[in-house]
Amino acid sequence: MPTNMISKVLEKAVLPLDVAPPVKRGPASRTSVRRNPNMEKLQNGYLFPEISMRREAHEKKYPDAKVISLGIGDTTQPIPSIVTSAMAEYALALSTPEGYQGYGPEQGQKSLRKAIADVVYPSMGIRDTEVFISDGAQCDIARLQMMFGRDVTIAVQDPTFPGYVDNGVIMGQTGPAADEESGGSRYAGIEYMRCAPENAFFPDLSRVRRTDVIFFCSPNNPTGHAASRDQLRQLVDFARRNGSIVVFDSAYASYVSPGGGDDKPRSIYEVPGAREVAIEISSFSKFAGFTGVRLGWAVVPDELLYADGTRVARDFDRVVTTCFNGASSVAQAGGLACLATEEGRAAVASVVAGYKENARVLVDTFQALGKEVYGGDDSPYVWVRLFPGRRSWDVFAEILGFGPGGEGFVRVSAFNSRDRVVEACARLTSFLA
Amino acid sequence: MPTNMISKVLEKAVLPLDVAPPVKRGPASRTSVRRNPNMEKLQNGYLFPEISMRREAHEKKYPDAKVISLGIGDTTQPIPSIVTSAMAEYALALSTPEGYQGYGPEQGQKSLRKAIADVVYPSMGIRDTEVFISDGAQCDIARLQMMFGRDVTIAVQDPTFPGYVDNGVIMGQTGPAADEESGGSRYAGIEYMRCAPENAFFPDLSRVRRTDVIFFCSPNNPTGHAASRDQLRQLVDFARRNGSIVVFDSAYASYVSPGGGDDKPRSIYEVPGAREVAIEISSFSKFAGFTGVRLGWAVVPDELLYADGTRVARDFDRVVTTCFNGASSVAQAGGLACLATEEGRAAVASVVAGYKENARVLVDTFQALGKEVYGGDDSPYVWVRLFPGRRSWDVFAEILGFGPGGEGFVRVSAFNSRDRVVEACARLTSFLA
Repeated sequence: MPTNMISKVLEKAVLPLDVAPPVKRGPASRTSVRRNPNMEKLQNGYLFPEISMRREAHEKKYPDAKVISLGIGDTTQPIPSIVTSAMAEYALALSTPEGYQGYGPEQGQKSLRKAIADVVYPSMGIRDTEVFISDGAQCDIARLQMMFGRDVTIAVQDPTFPGYVDNGVIMGQTGPAADEESGGSRYAGIEYMRCAPENAFFPDLSRVRRTDVIFFCSPNNPTGHAASRDQLRQLVDFARRNGSIVVFDSAYASYVSPGGGDDKPRSIYEVPGAREVAIEISSFSKFAGFTGVRLGWAVVPDELLYADGTRVARDFDRVVTTCFNGASSVAQAGGLACLATEEGRAAVASVVAGYKENARVLVDTFQALGKEVYGGDDSPYVWVRLFPGRRSWDVFAEILGFGPGGEGFVRVSAFNSRDRVVEACARLTSFLA
Repeated sequence: MPTNMISKVLEKAVLPLDVAPPVKRGPASRTSVRRNPNMEKLQNGYLFPEISMRREAHEKKYPDAKVISLGIGDTTQPIPSIVTSAMAEYALALSTPEGYQGYGPEQGQKSLRKAIADVVYPSMGIRDTEVFISDGAQCDIARLQMMFGRDVTIAVQDPTFPGYVDNGVIMGQTGPAADEESGGSRYAGIEYMRCAPENAFFPDLSRVRRTDVIFFCSPNNPTGHAASRDQLRQLVDFARRNGSIVVFDSAYASYVSPGGGDDKPRSIYEVPGAREVAIEISSFSKFAGFTGVRLGWAVVPDELLYADGTRVARDFDRVVTTCFNGASSVAQAGGLACLATEEGRAAVASVVAGYKENARVLVDTFQALGKEVYGGDDSPYVWVRLFPGRRSWDVFAEILGFGPGGEGFVRVSAFNSRDRVVEACARLTSFLA
């Protein structure tokens, strides 16, 4: 809510009063419930709240500092009005007898599922019934991990988005954390697939141990690397040979530059044979500025089967109906407006194009400073070796390392206005030059 | 953005389209991933999708039938415009530089957390930081069960909302299902606390086995019974003696009739000593018609501790930040409008009052038919012994039994327009009289 509206509302707020007498706070007495040992295993807080806390501490200490946050990948630019008008219209209609709708299908509105199948996966044979609408990719990761349960083994890229591992830890898929000298935490039982400049950000699969599930994010968060068609073919072949399931996170697919010599798929389903081995999760967050509105989706193809022949989609449907109750209907109306018309698609594409230009400015700045820099072409993230040999957390409160493989590098996000990115580049230049 | 740049963007904006050739559907080949044995344990589909499917099957078979659905507890009446206007205004502001907001705090907007603490829990000592905003109570149940993990033991009322048990099964807290002669499914390891007319819908706690967690829903779904203050005192004392955690589901609290001889708390925190043993989950769904908008909350008091002294709130915060990313900001703007002003509170209260009058019509109808009927006074649900001795599923595709204790009874929901409730009562009367 815009600040002025909040204060307007709070001003009028008269709080009800006459209920029970105040309950006295006694000294805390413990229950005898044992804390979940998997929660105990988790190291530190989750990465992004940790960044926010460090930022707030910094601002408290230096109240005059005008922090430009390029740490959390949070969108900053207005959502095109064709999209917000659709949400507003939907919301207002909820006050009419004709427009009111209660529970929608837990799997999402048919029209939105169909729009995603048609627009995002043209010619890839994805059916609307294989698309499950969600409140965001992070939430789908949690639901997928609930579905897989504790007995599966998992592999992740290194570095990668922390949600795959942390949700796996909560579900009991891992052993304890072991801090490495290199910094960061690894958990016993997880296969970390190193993705670094030396291997073109793609693991040497001949040295990767077979696991049940492989989480693979492309364009990668944080390195900004988009896997090539050949790399994804290798990944799908590897999964097929091993009978593994790939969870392909394409949350940044809309940032992939089209064409060019190095052909980079925007979906795993562009690769033949993927339907039998891959789930894809994706999001409106970075595609349409929906980080706060919350909307995403998962594709679970009908051909994806467990060893006993059960359709994975059957279990995912059970999880979606039992542990979730559908994404907000208002958010879904906005999602449909992003996809259903040429005008909507062009409007959201223009915001993505703006962030990509920011990324270009950042890449140019770091290159001018003589830094080793990756990403930015096919993603909103620029991956830069800022202070080789130093721990990321030590470098800068606003800068972060993603997993053990990320040390020495920091991810810089292009999510900001052009002015602030330019200002940040000027500050970085005077600081580092 | 200058016009020439927009058209440049538009030119490039043709989203996917000319990508890969269609992927051929081959015969499905299984992965070698073992299906989660806990998913295997789940009996049937989740209750509410099952009802929808049976309804659709009925309508397909009898296309002229005008089904009035009183099965799923889904709201039907328009949301007051003071609430939808706030959502619309918030959505439209997302298209402006000043009004745009990306990720909110995962725990919810401070203003909404504070409004809930002040308005819903006046004089109960609940701090805004103890309120976690969610996308609904069902989702919070899943997150709480993720947090507790597989090693806890749980107790549930019988009958009760199926989400507590089904999420526990998914987390591995139970043994296999064992179908009972009485109908329905019980799972080994769960303590079922019978709540029936014979015991004033409150369990004989002297015969209840100690468990780590006790799920308790009041006003109860499906029986419509609101526990008295004395009953809740017994529950809190029982939990304190046993070192258990109560998860108190107050999703229907706004339906409790105020005053009267039988004093019925709307929150567990009206009972002294509850802060050290109880979590409360609740929702805007039935309070403000938000079933599709998705908004709820959980209260986790600071004094609630695991056996090792860890604050439960610490682990819940980790789950909320790791497995979730906050409720839709648009929905939160609507929630704030429900609570922050006298006008908003009065508007949503009038919708609740309308449903309560529907419940009265249903109770009167069943009483006139000589049926044994409960609930309706403090909840939108009427619990009626329609055909003693017959299995609920057999009775009526739109009517449902909630767990083993529910057989013979059906839950009838007051969520509909007055006209349709009156019509339903006329049909029931001519069918049953």
